[in-house]
Amino acid sequence: MIQSTSNEKIKQVRQLLSSAKARREQGLFVIEGEKLFCEAPSSAIEAVYITEDFQGKASPEAREKLSLFGRFDTVSDHVFQKITDTVTPQGIVCVLKSGSAPFEEALKKTAENHCRFLILEGIQDPGNLGTMLRTAEAAGYQWVIADGKTADLYNPKVIRSTMGAIFRVGFSSVGSLSAAVERLKERGVCLYAAHLKGKENYDAIRYADKTALLIGNESRGLSDEISSFADVLVKIPMQGKTESLNAAVAAAILMYQSR
Amino acid sequence: MIQSTSNEKIKQVRQLLSSAKARREQGLFVIEGEKLFCEAPSSAIEAVYITEDFQGKASPEAREKLSLFGRFDTVSDHVFQKITDTVTPQGIVCVLKSGSAPFEEALKKTAENHCRFLILEGIQDPGNLGTMLRTAEAAGYQWVIADGKTADLYNPKVIRSTMGAIFRVGFSSVGSLSAAVERLKERGVCLYAAHLKGKENYDAIRYADKTALLIGNESRGLSDEISSFADVLVKIPMQGKTESLNAAVAAAILMYQSR
Repeated sequence: MIQSTSNEKIKQVRQLLSSAKARREQGLFVIEGEKLFCEAPSSAIEAVYITEDFQGKASPEAREKLSLFGRFDTVSDHVFQKITDTVTPQGIVCVLKSGSAPFEEALKKTAENHCRFLILEGIQDPGNLGTMLRTAEAAGYQWVIADGKTADLYNPKVIRSTMGAIFRVGFSSVGSLSAAVERLKERGVCLYAAHLKGKENYDAIRYADKTALLIGNESRGLSDEISSFADVLVKIPMQGKTESLNAAVAAAILMYQSR
Repeated sequence: MIQSTSNEKIKQVRQLLSSAKARREQGLFVIEGEKLFCEAPSSAIEAVYITEDFQGKASPEAREKLSLFGRFDTVSDHVFQKITDTVTPQGIVCVLKSGSAPFEEALKKTAENHCRFLILEGIQDPGNLGTMLRTAEAAGYQWVIADGKTADLYNPKVIRSTMGAIFRVGFSSVGSLSAAVERLKERGVCLYAAHLKGKENYDAIRYADKTALLIGNESRGLSDEISSFADVLVKIPMQGKTESLNAAVAAAILMYQSR
């Protein structure tokens, strides 16, 4: 049993929890909780840390996955406190291989008759990003494509907010969002930009079979450059003095309308 | 100029920022930033604290409101750091009178031909609560009614997330949500509950002129008791393995559909 917080493995988990740079450099990230562990692809699991307590109370499904995986470390409650990011920890933390899917994988989806992409420019809030992935899965959006200025997908808060969608919705982080958008357009994907200057009401549009939705930064919205690629600037009407909707809310309303 | 962090006024602001109990007992809360200050009803303002820097750069609107209000304290940058809750503070913090509107005010709205209520049971996350108020205003919902288990409306994170809607959407906190819901029903308001066991798809419903939307706790959803009052259990269809939507997202999709 690992009983020291200065154990090298424990130090690594703490670093992966707190530092986006460490996650990027090591190509690893951390998930927590029995449900996410059961949903995680076994091939991506690098290490598992559990408490003694967890061993006793784990579900049959988690127990089977643990025994198939074969190797895990038991850690003392004191040590576990240092590698948990939640208020009421369940007693299991895993290190997984990260790495967003290449954009070429996303492009392959355009060969299907019906495809749905969510394109994000500079989404800053981890909760918003996670919620968008969660909503994307529910609304049947297959792929999320984000620029380098969007929050780190592997931030613990993003992972929690996705409620497991992180394992089920495709995600590509791209260097040039305009190049990515251009290539989707070449493949016949129709681009709808959520825009405060939008002319067409979101619920008066017949969305194309191949649809990509463009959502911009929480305070600045989409850049002029990315907006210029859009086939339609979409408006979500607002009453009162509201100046804009929360980005995850706007994305949800549009994804559901265009299902 | 206030230069000491142990000044009694400064201590009070810090207490109001951090403690829901203090906010409740004193009937006060704190807002921050020039925009919220300009939007705040003057009659509710109790105290204003600004930095010297803010005095120099304030907008004409803020300057006029400050001079009409007449009394404010200038505080040193060091002291201001202790009463700000934001990463990039603008140099103005105000103490306002709180107090949710009596439920009777909400009931008066039912006399109008068209009215929209959002009813919340046990919403835990401050960001979700704030986002719901923001979306409510945009979707033309006039009033939000919440039970005592819902997060504190005057939590700094809630206030930030409302983007000013806190001053423009009615809000009543009620002791008994079932009594409130029953009284709305007596007045001819039709109750739509967002429910995982919902039978009717949200986009196949013709919403009544007098509509109230019931949204439950992030993990448990609506209680059986509150659900039992609903005229319609509404379903938001979900693809993939998603078990539920984020509560603020579900509320947004339904509020926009039922506008």
